Amino acid sequence: MELKFIDFKSMSMCKSVGMEGLMKFSSSFLDSKLMFGVNVAPSFCSHRGLLTKASYSSTSYDATRSVSKKNFLEDTYSYKINGTNHTSLYFRDKWVLDASDDEYGGVLVNAERLPSDPDKFTFVLRASLSHWKVKGKKGVWLKLPLEKCDLVPVAVKEGFQYHHAERGYVMMTYWIPEEPCMLPSNASHQVGVGGFVINDKNEVLVVQEKHFTPALSGLWKIPTGFIHESEEIFTGIVREVQEETGIDTEFVEVMAFRHVHDVAFQKSDLFFICLLRPLSKQIMVDDLEIQDAKWMPLVEFVEQPLIQEDDMFKKIIDIFIARLGKRYCGLSVHQLVSKFDDKLSTLYFNTVDDPNLNCQAS
Amino acid sequence: MELKFIDFKSMSMCKSVGMEGLMKFSSSFLDSKLMFGVNVAPSFCSHRGLLTKASYSSTSYDATRSVSKKNFLEDTYSYKINGTNHTSLYFRDKWVLDASDDEYGGVLVNAERLPSDPDKFTFVLRASLSHWKVKGKKGVWLKLPLEKCDLVPVAVKEGFQYHHAERGYVMMTYWIPEEPCMLPSNASHQVGVGGFVINDKNEVLVVQEKHFTPALSGLWKIPTGFIHESEEIFTGIVREVQEETGIDTEFVEVMAFRHVHDVAFQKSDLFFICLLRPLSKQIMVDDLEIQDAKWMPLVEFVEQPLIQEDDMFKKIIDIFIARLGKRYCGLSVHQLVSKFDDKLSTLYFNTVDDPNLNCQAS
Repeated sequence: MELKFIDFKSMSMCKSVGMEGLMKFSSSFLDSKLMFGVNVAPSFCSHRGLLTKASYSSTSYDATRSVSKKNFLEDTYSYKINGTNHTSLYFRDKWVLDASDDEYGGVLVNAERLPSDPDKFTFVLRASLSHWKVKGKKGVWLKLPLEKCDLVPVAVKEGFQYHHAERGYVMMTYWIPEEPCMLPSNASHQVGVGGFVINDKNEVLVVQEKHFTPALSGLWKIPTGFIHESEEIFTGIVREVQEETGIDTEFVEVMAFRHVHDVAFQKSDLFFICLLRPLSKQIMVDDLEIQDAKWMPLVEFVEQPLIQEDDMFKKIIDIFIARLGKRYCGLSVHQLVSKFDDKLSTLYFNTVDDPNLNCQAS
Repeated sequence: MELKFIDFKSMSMCKSVGMEGLMKFSSSFLDSKLMFGVNVAPSFCSHRGLLTKASYSSTSYDATRSVSKKNFLEDTYSYKINGTNHTSLYFRDKWVLDASDDEYGGVLVNAERLPSDPDKFTFVLRASLSHWKVKGKKGVWLKLPLEKCDLVPVAVKEGFQYHHAERGYVMMTYWIPEEPCMLPSNASHQVGVGGFVINDKNEVLVVQEKHFTPALSGLWKIPTGFIHESEEIFTGIVREVQEETGIDTEFVEVMAFRHVHDVAFQKSDLFFICLLRPLSKQIMVDDLEIQDAKWMPLVEFVEQPLIQEDDMFKKIIDIFIARLGKRYCGLSVHQLVSKFDDKLSTLYFNTVDDPNLNCQAS
C-alpha cells in the first residue's frame, strides 16, 4: 500500500489554519485529504474560538492507516495528536461521519454510528466539517444521545452550539456558510388548556389547586393543565378535567385563547379556554395536584372578588356568559388531512355553513 | 485542626452504596458528612446506572482538608478518587453547590458558581445530591452554559437527564423522590402564522417560496412564517408579510388555527390564519426566501387546482370568503394584565359587546 506525505500548509485550500503537523495516509483516500486543514470557522451560528484550547493551531497530527481491516465499513486508523497515540475509526471510502442530507442543503449525522471515544470523535468531526464545507453543505445537525455525553465537550470545542434537548439526547448544530444562520429555531411554546364545564343546574365545575400563586389564594377556578406531547387541545382538556375532578366531559369549542411570554425557561405560553359539556356528575379529586373540587353555582363563581377585580378573569367570564346566552361563537374542532404535509391536522374555526349559526362580522 | 476518620459503611444512612473508602476532614464540617454515602438513586426521571462506570461502588475516597484558605467563601479540599489526587473546591460551611430553592420544593443550581474542573464537579455534585436528598428536595435544575460543557458528562454519569437546551446552554434535571417525576415538560410547540391580505381591487397578496413541498409546486400561497421568540401573533404576521413582500399591513383578526403534530424534531405546530388590511401597494420581494410575489385576483387565487383539490386549503378559503362576506367572526386581539401572573398578555376572542357584531352560537 502506497503512503503519501502531505503538508497541509502548502495546500491552496489551507488558509489561516496553522496546522503544524503532517499526515500520511493511503492514496486510496486522497480525495479525503481536502477535509483536513480547511478553515471551517463560520461567521454566524457558531462559538468557534470560545474555547481557545480547541483551536487547530495547538494541535499536530501524525497519522497512518492501520493495515488490519475490521470489516467492510469500518477500519482502524492510527494517528497522533500532540504526541499522543490514538486509533481512530473511519468509514470505508470516506473519512467523514455517517450522515444523511436534509432538504435544506445540510446534513444530519447518524447518531447510531458515532464513535464512543472523544479523541476519535475529535479527529473524525474535524475531518467531517472540512469535508462538508468543501461540499458546500450548510447546517450540520448532530444528535448526541445521553450515553454519548462524552462527545458533547468535543462538539462544543469544534464550534457546535446546542439547538434543543429532550430527556435522552441533546441536538447540536453548526452553521457552515459565511452568511446569516438559516437554521430553524427550536420549540418556543408550551400549550395549556382550561375548561368551563357547566351542568344543567347552572353549576360550574371548579377546583382549588395545591400549588397556587399566593395572590389567588381562595379562588375557585376552572380545571387547567398542559397538553401532553402530540396531544390535541380538544382531548387534552377532557383528560385534564377527568384527572383533576373525575368528571367525564365532551369538548364543545375553544372560546378564546391567551398568549403570554417569558414564562417557564423564557418560553411563551398559549392557553386555550374551552367549553365542555359534562357527561358525569360524581366528583373524585386528584390528591396529587388538587386541594378540592366542587360544582359551584354560576352566580357564586362569577361573583368571586378575585374574578371581578381582575381584567383578564372578568373578560373570560364575560365571554363564557355570552356563550351561554348564545351571543358568542367559539371555534369548533374539525379534523382533516392536507396535501400540504399529508398529516391529519385539526382546524379550529367557527362553523361557516351551519344555518343555525349566525357568526357575522361588522 | 482536628481531623476525624469516618467510615461511611457504618453510617445508618449509608444504604446499599458500597462506598469502599474513607474520608477525613475537619470537624467543623461534620454535618456535611451526611452528604456522602447516601444512595440518591431515584426510581423515576433519572438514568442513574446507565453508565455503570460512574456508580459509587467502584470509587474510593480519601480526603483531607487543605489548611490554606483562599478566601471567605471558598477553600481547597484534597481528596483521592480511585487513587488519583484531586483538589476540590467547596463553599464555606457547606459542601454543596450554590443553589436557590424553587417554588415546588426543588433547587436551581447557580450556573455562575459552578466549578470548571470536571473532577471537582463530580465530587461536589455527589455531595450536593446527597445533601438535597437529606433535605427532602425534589427536582434539581442544573443549567450548564456552553463554556461549562465539560461538566455535561459528569452530570449524566451522576444520573441527570437533559431537559431542554438553547443555543448557549443545556438545562439538566434530576428528580430525587421515589415517586413519579413532577418536573414540567419543556416547550412543545412552534408557532406559525399566515396572513390573508386583500386590497380594494379584490386582489390577494400571494407568494411563491424558493423552498416548497414538491406536491405544491406552482401554488401561489399567502405569506407565512414562524413568530420570533416572545413575539406576538398579531405583530409576527405583520412582520412576516413585510419581510416577504415589502407590504405594510394592519392586523385585523385570527380567523382560525391549525394544530398538527410530529413536525420539526417531533414537536407540534400551531398555525394561526390571520386577516390583514394592506397599508401599502408596492411589492418588494425578499430574495432569500421568496421566488416571487404579486397581487392576484381573488377568483384566480381561489380557483387554483391545488387549493380546490385540498380539504384544508379549501376550508380555509371558505372561511376567508365567509369573512369577506361578513358571515364569519374571527378572534380579535386584546391586551391586558392579569393578577394571575402580573404579565401583559394577549387575549384573542370575538368582540362580545360590539353592537355592530353579531356572533351568535346555535
